[in-house]
Amino acid sequence: MDPQRLRAILEDVQAGRATVDQTMQQLRELPFRELDFAHVDTHRHLRTGFPEVVLGDGKTPEQISAILVELARGGATVFATRVTAAAAALVVPAVPEARYLPIPRVVVVGPTPAPDRGRGVIAVVSAGTSDVPVAEEAALTAELSGNRVERIFDVGVAGLHRLIAHRETIAAAEIVIVVAGMEGALPSVVGGLFARPVIAVPTSVGYGASLGGIAALLSMLNSCAAGVAVVNIDNGFGAVRMAAMLTRKREP
Amino acid sequence: MDPQRLRAILEDVQAGRATVDQTMQQLRELPFRELDFAHVDTHRHLRTGFPEVVLGDGKTPEQISAILVELARGGATVFATRVTAAAAALVVPAVPEARYLPIPRVVVVGPTPAPDRGRGVIAVVSAGTSDVPVAEEAALTAELSGNRVERIFDVGVAGLHRLIAHRETIAAAEIVIVVAGMEGALPSVVGGLFARPVIAVPTSVGYGASLGGIAALLSMLNSCAAGVAVVNIDNGFGAVRMAAMLTRKREP
Amino acid sequence: MDPQRLRAILEDVQAGRATVDQTMQQLRELPFRELDFAHVDTHRHLRTGFPEVVLGDGKTPEQISAILVELARGGATVFATRVTAAAAALVVPAVPEARYLPIPRVVVVGPTPAPDRGRGVIAVVSAGTSDVPVAEEAALTAELSGNRVERIFDVGVAGLHRLIAHRETIAAAEIVIVVAGMEGALPSVVGGLFARPVIAVPTSVGYGASLGGIAALLSMLNSCAAGVAVVNIDNGFGAVRMAAMLTRKREP
Amino acid sequence: MDPQRLRAILEDVQAGRATVDQTMQQLRELPFRELDFAHVDTHRHLRTGFPEVVLGDGKTPEQISAILVELARGGATVFATRVTAAAAALVVPAVPEARYLPIPRVVVVGPTPAPDRGRGVIAVVSAGTSDVPVAEEAALTAELSGNRVERIFDVGVAGLHRLIAHRETIAAAEIVIVVAGMEGALPSVVGGLFARPVIAVPTSVGYGASLGGIAALLSMLNSCAAGVAVVNIDNGFGAVRMAAMLTRKREP
Amino acid sequence: MDPQRLRAILEDVQAGRATVDQTMQQLRELPFRELDFAHVDTHRHLRTGFPEVVLGDGKTPEQISAILVELARGGATVFATRVTAAAAALVVPAVPEARYLPIPRVVVVGPTPAPDRGRGVIAVVSAGTSDVPVAEEAALTAELSGNRVERIFDVGVAGLHRLIAHRETIAAAEIVIVVAGMEGALPSVVGGLFARPVIAVPTSVGYGASLGGIAALLSMLNSCAAGVAVVNIDNGFGAVRMAAMLTRKREP
Amino acid sequence: MDPQRLRAILEDVQAGRATVDQTMQQLRELPFRELDFAHVDTHRHLRTGFPEVVLGDGKTPEQISAILVELARGGATVFATRVTAAAAALVVPAVPEARYLPIPRVVVVGPTPAPDRGRGVIAVVSAGTSDVPVAEEAALTAELSGNRVERIFDVGVAGLHRLIAHRETIAAAEIVIVVAGMEGALPSVVGGLFARPVIAVPTSVGYGASLGGIAALLSMLNSCAAGVAVVNIDNGFGAVRMAAMLTRKREP
Amino acid sequence: MDPQRLRAILEDVQAGRATVDQTMQQLRELPFRELDFAHVDTHRHLRTGFPEVVLGDGKTPEQISAILVELARGGATVFATRVTAAAAALVVPAVPEARYLPIPRVVVVGPTPAPDRGRGVIAVVSAGTSDVPVAEEAALTAELSGNRVERIFDVGVAGLHRLIAHRETIAAAEIVIVVAGMEGALPSVVGGLFARPVIAVPTSVGYGASLGGIAALLSMLNSCAAGVAVVNIDNGFGAVRMAAMLTRKREP
Amino acid sequence: MDPQRLRAILEDVQAGRATVDQTMQQLRELPFRELDFAHVDTHRHLRTGFPEVVLGDGKTPEQISAILVELARGGATVFATRVTAAAAALVVPAVPEARYLPIPRVVVVGPTPAPDRGRGVIAVVSAGTSDVPVAEEAALTAELSGNRVERIFDVGVAGLHRLIAHRETIAAAEIVIVVAGMEGALPSVVGGLFARPVIAVPTSVGYGASLGGIAALLSMLNSCAAGVAVVNIDNGFGAVRMAAMLTRKREP
Repeated sequence: MDPQRLRAILEDVQAGRATVDQTMQQLRELPFRELDFAHVDTHRHLRTGFPEVVLGDGKTPEQISAILVELARGGATVFATRVTAAAAALVVPAVPEARYLPIPRVVVVGPTPAPDRGRGVIAVVSAGTSDVPVAEEAALTAELSGNRVERIFDVGVAGLHRLIAHRETIAAAEIVIVVAGMEGALPSVVGGLFARPVIAVPTSVGYGASLGGIAALLSMLNSCAAGVAVVNIDNGFGAVRMAAMLTRKREP
Repeated sequence: MDPQRLRAILEDVQAGRATVDQTMQQLRELPFRELDFAHVDTHRHLRTGFPEVVLGDGKTPEQISAILVELARGGATVFATRVTAAAAALVVPAVPEARYLPIPRVVVVGPTPAPDRGRGVIAVVSAGTSDVPVAEEAALTAELSGNRVERIFDVGVAGLHRLIAHRETIAAAEIVIVVAGMEGALPSVVGGLFARPVIAVPTSVGYGASLGGIAALLSMLNSCAAGVAVVNIDNGFGAVRMAAMLTRKREP
Repeated sequence: MDPQRLRAILEDVQAGRATVDQTMQQLRELPFRELDFAHVDTHRHLRTGFPEVVLGDGKTPEQISAILVELARGGATVFATRVTAAAAALVVPAVPEARYLPIPRVVVVGPTPAPDRGRGVIAVVSAGTSDVPVAEEAALTAELSGNRVERIFDVGVAGLHRLIAHRETIAAAEIVIVVAGMEGALPSVVGGLFARPVIAVPTSVGYGASLGGIAALLSMLNSCAAGVAVVNIDNGFGAVRMAAMLTRKREP
Repeated sequence: MDPQRLRAILEDVQAGRATVDQTMQQLRELPFRELDFAHVDTHRHLRTGFPEVVLGDGKTPEQISAILVELARGGATVFATRVTAAAAALVVPAVPEARYLPIPRVVVVGPTPAPDRGRGVIAVVSAGTSDVPVAEEAALTAELSGNRVERIFDVGVAGLHRLIAHRETIAAAEIVIVVAGMEGALPSVVGGLFARPVIAVPTSVGYGASLGGIAALLSMLNSCAAGVAVVNIDNGFGAVRMAAMLTRKREP
Repeated sequence: MDPQRLRAILEDVQAGRATVDQTMQQLRELPFRELDFAHVDTHRHLRTGFPEVVLGDGKTPEQISAILVELARGGATVFATRVTAAAAALVVPAVPEARYLPIPRVVVVGPTPAPDRGRGVIAVVSAGTSDVPVAEEAALTAELSGNRVERIFDVGVAGLHRLIAHRETIAAAEIVIVVAGMEGALPSVVGGLFARPVIAVPTSVGYGASLGGIAALLSMLNSCAAGVAVVNIDNGFGAVRMAAMLTRKREP
Repeated sequence: MDPQRLRAILEDVQAGRATVDQTMQQLRELPFRELDFAHVDTHRHLRTGFPEVVLGDGKTPEQISAILVELARGGATVFATRVTAAAAALVVPAVPEARYLPIPRVVVVGPTPAPDRGRGVIAVVSAGTSDVPVAEEAALTAELSGNRVERIFDVGVAGLHRLIAHRETIAAAEIVIVVAGMEGALPSVVGGLFARPVIAVPTSVGYGASLGGIAALLSMLNSCAAGVAVVNIDNGFGAVRMAAMLTRKREP
Repeated sequence: MDPQRLRAILEDVQAGRATVDQTMQQLRELPFRELDFAHVDTHRHLRTGFPEVVLGDGKTPEQISAILVELARGGATVFATRVTAAAAALVVPAVPEARYLPIPRVVVVGPTPAPDRGRGVIAVVSAGTSDVPVAEEAALTAELSGNRVERIFDVGVAGLHRLIAHRETIAAAEIVIVVAGMEGALPSVVGGLFARPVIAVPTSVGYGASLGGIAALLSMLNSCAAGVAVVNIDNGFGAVRMAAMLTRKREP
Repeated sequence: MDPQRLRAILEDVQAGRATVDQTMQQLRELPFRELDFAHVDTHRHLRTGFPEVVLGDGKTPEQISAILVELARGGATVFATRVTAAAAALVVPAVPEARYLPIPRVVVVGPTPAPDRGRGVIAVVSAGTSDVPVAEEAALTAELSGNRVERIFDVGVAGLHRLIAHRETIAAAEIVIVVAGMEGALPSVVGGLFARPVIAVPTSVGYGASLGGIAALLSMLNSCAAGVAVVNIDNGFGAVRMAAMLTRKREP
């Protein structure tokens, strides 16, 4: 509660400008105001430059189109994730300036911002070719959030030399997002080789005992390397959201 | 590998003070020389100020003592986590300058460093009183890593007003580590109320359908709030290691 | 067993109006009668005003139509849940007075009863837009059961201020049904903020580690708030059935 | 927050008996003032007659004693659950007026309130003798909450006639709490026979495929009877807390 | 191996009507000759009257037709289970004398044998209407195996009086097969009310926490009633196979 | 309820030796009179010769002793299962005629009945030496139930020839109880080699991925052999109870 | 690191052909070269004769075609696994010399190599007809890898004599690959009967409690037979890759 | 069946030296003889030089001693695994020539055989210090089986350069046994770096989401590297048994 406001209320009652009953009523309404700061946070994307995002999963093309049009009204860059090609064929014509990127399955409206809102570079590292859609969703989200991104794809543990070929890029990154399915070993290896913090993204790539990505998820949670944290299966978007938040430059 | 040392060795062979064979032998004997860039990372604590840590779990008091004595030889601050009171009673007398902190179950050797190695403050937020050991292990680890820490304990979702009472501290933190057992809802609430990145630590506090912390872990992985990543159950240490790495000031 | 009836039987044998063998046969048939009270309970909807309900899941449109026609014969209000739009297109024309509500996926036959059969109000609170079908199924079921309902939708923990904006409605409710998928944290938050009993409904909304709603279910079962009980995943109907039973006015 | 107290404070500042600064300090020191409506709820036991409860699990006898002494200071009835006999032997002598009930493993301080705070009767039904500790914890909690309780123990589905012998009591109850381990079938049977709402409590009684109570929990969540909701394994306390909240008489 | 056939072969070689080499070739060509005692068991259906059965699941209509034609060649009654209506439309015209029963999803070729091969009656009891396909597959299999069958369907625990209405039939049965999904409580209830052995068949009927039948399976494995054994989910066929084997009259 | 007793009571009231009120009181006091047919079943051990059994697990030695003394009062054979050696040392001296069998961990009171109550022989087959306690509990229970038993122990799939050496005994058995831990393959092999019905008992023998017997349980539920049903992990007693019920000779 | 290369570098600095700074730079780049040996291993198929393989799962027909054309450019034999018939209809015409084998679902380009690259014979044993696609994928992969293969299909534990009929072939094999779904007992039986190492392949064949192959997987991991190791569910390809590697003749 | 033997039998009946009935009896007994070859396999350790092994887990010290004395009678080398130090203190004095190795927890009786029974070297690689007991059990078992062994311990993925330092040893090994707990990533890395077959041994080292080794097990089963097969958690013995069988030199 804002002390100034409380002081003013109390001074009013002290000075007889308000009765005790009026003051009690005012105080009773205060907790509500307490939460006002939260309300402001729902507009945090306006302050921080994170674009608005629509999760396409489970929405009809009509719903996606309508929300994108609404959100883009003010000229902001907005995008929708997990949009199938079939849905995109209906969404793109319905939304002015929309374009579809099939690999990350994203519909974007508006320009990509300049990469000047985050400190340093976010490296997005992925293990196999089947992990690319999740990795590319992450990389694109980072770019749309105004971060600089390095893509280092297809460097799984079955061919470690390919990873090491990129060692300078990774070692220089502010944060490394590591995307892997199957046994999910890559975040441990990256965390062990490089002294950089890792946000690990398990994917649902695999079959049988991969249990839809649970095997990779468990592997990453048990990483013996220091500095590894994990997000939900296939949640490349969430990993970047955290990375972007961590690297966001504070306003002066 | 220490560049000075390598330079000296090479100058010796250049100057004829050592033969090529002697030099090759020297290089071979230097630990980890063959994968040099990795080697540096094993000494990263020297560069970055992270203290050496011993995981007490599964080691005898004699082993813990011996490793602490060895690591502390150079005067560095070192500590051992997950040390039971019974083990500590044997370890502390055997290690010069060791002291035991019973709540986080940590034996520390050497002084706590000045809190000047990380950017900003790491807030450690915990839900219930039973979560305090994990939270305190996290907070202490952060302090021993040279970070500034704010402890905000016992602010679970069953009494949200207590959390909100600390809203300024949390909103100002660089990173928020949120420790919770049972339903593990606190990270989502913190992530929803404050625009700060959250590292969520599920604890094994609970019974029955908490499945030893799995319920809290799943809850955190599915957080609908943006900017939440998760570490293993009870892994307060790991959460801080990542937070410290993320906030570590870069050397100029 | 009805003592009067037993007395009559015994008086008959005492008075010689029945032989011992006849009496034994009568007693042998009694246990059956014992259960008669249960049989009456299958007609409890007649007494209590709960409408008959058909679970559309796993039935053909023909089966749904036939059962609805049969049940509605006496003029009662009946409805079918979990009816897809495709099935509804076949069911509605086949059942007189039937109408389809696409969001809760319900076919209703007959009028909505006056909201005078339950004490107070049942509040139906839901977290995300994807949880609305389950929440709306719950709200509609409550209305068709003769309860007064308040819908408070889209107030998930990622935007807690929206929940608090409805605090007077929730605090005044007799029971709060809280519907949430993903991490399922909302029932704990509602239970913590308001001194009202909560019936928590996990939904299958989510992906990856949500395990089809198991994560939300476990979260709710481990709620640290007092006064939270849980029903099966997506079982909005069951939650309302319990709430309606709990608030049903007793016949004088 | 107690309105009388707030009024007194405000009258003091209005009358000049306290300065604004003193008043602000007073308000700041009142616990939980900043989120007032929530604060009231933390004191809800004063209004509603719910006793304060200490979860003994995971606390030392010294901690339990200290908290009980603290809570009982104002003369209220308080109790601690899940206290082992060994712990009770240390707690009871340390807390004035404390007594230990070994079967529900509860230490009670103060008198049992008159059973006049709830509407009707809470029936506590349990399946096997091994389920009695959980059932008795529930029954005792209900009594200490000022509810009238009927205990109907050892009426599992393997001997259904015993359950039916109590049919009048169950049918007359406001709510039925059903406690069962192993296959957890009893809540479905009670819900099917009687038109009363059921709060089902799975217990960890069983072995092998009972998975520590998970089998009973799943069984109860899938109940085909209407009006069954479920709490965590062995959580007799939680079931009663909800039942007591549901039956609490509203203040006029 | 048919003793008569073996005797004939040996008499041929004894009488010089076949050479030793011819005889060895004959023996080699007889299926399964090398492990004779086992071989007899593969032809056990000839001795015992169990019909040959084709599991339709995972076979093409062409494969099902071909196998049925082959097996029915000798005039025996054969049938195929788990045949979809679509597959049956192709199978039935291709197999002489075949007929399709849509509810148990079975294609039968040849007459139903007289019910004189088993002792007593096999009662098939099922809980809900959705369990009928599994129950009917069981009942039909029992009839095709030459057993007498009593069908007692739709007597789930939510309406126990319906079960008790059939108590004489159940009490008189040699074995009771109990088919139930959701919470799977019915076998415990049947086992508790009647002193008859129960083979419990969990079904995949349910949703959410029924986990595709795992909840019912666990419930049945933990039955507190004596004399309950369990088969795989939806395995009505397997339950009857065991029941038929248990009740098969021994040849004199 | 004993028909003779009921007849005597009714003759008394018929003859005027008892009033109707006295008779009603008598009937009320008879245990379980209200659900007569069920009541008979609770005394079924008197009719059928099944001994009363106490599950020692989770009871104190005092409780076990007291129950055994009570049950044995009428001269019947009774026994307690899952009694540790330590408990037995306290139970045996306290119960007249009690003896302890350490391998099946059973305390028996009274003589073993003649093996004439069941049809044929129950074969108890077990895989490894660690499975013997469960198998021996099964075998002893069968003997105490008046069945003839053949023990065929230590014939696991790693040495199949040992199993085949007993083929005549197994092929002649009425039912085969197969006890196995680890991979639980033995029931499938027995079911495949012999045309006899199998009750499979998984044991908790194993480590790691045996998951406390779940691996063996799943294996047995998925048996490709016909005529296999399964009971809970380590439930040798339950398997025999079913086998004894299945083979019990019907009274003429 | 290649000692010759290091020697040369040191001799250069010793001889003044390089400065210390140049040498340090060269050494810094060495770790990279360290991993060069791994790079060579990515070309190991060239050295060892293993064909290149494309996992068709999750790739479009266009992608499969393009990769096969690329890989086959040098004349090598290549193949794609898990190609549906629909995909094959598009792939085969697009790739010169390609042919489709529908049962193992493999597209092969180029000739089958002579079976002279491995020691001895790999036996591929499978349990049921539904396991054949996985078994045939394994057998074909072995042949394409230049191994001699014996197929022994449809010899599940329900008909063990069929397995024993092939005992000489199995006993003579270098390695036995055993493919089984449902209860997955066959590897234990093969491992018990024959003193040969077994690579066990669980399949997803089954339903209900087979959990998509998890039951078979667990069964195999708990095998009581010596010499059994396990690969992922349905991973016939992986089993053969290991077997081929184990039996590969070393180059002289 | 031995063709010679069958021929002799048939010649007897042809020549009149046996009657048809005698011959049928002889043939009936044959299947038994069929399995004789299996019996020989139980003595396979005599032929192949594998020592007899006693699994100490779940046996009393007396049982272990007795079995070891019995097995060692013929002068063979025998050993017992999983013997605690406490048990060893009782076993070693009771068995002549026995010695205890505390780290692998093995009691050995008799000399270590010369390492000449297997082809090449078995490399045993382990990740962390806590994995050493399992790895050392494996290495010792290999030595006692007459194999040459290389131990490469403490080379987990968090310090990959240590693994690479041993690359020549690993690349030269016939088989590599890789032992790892926590995330279980090491087998994938070894399989990716070296073209050698890997038998992966997950260990129960870890906590929380390691689920007692299940995380490592799943990780290894999903390995993206070619040539990796897996054994049960902590089953170092089983991995070596397979490796020894695979490398056993065939008798000429």
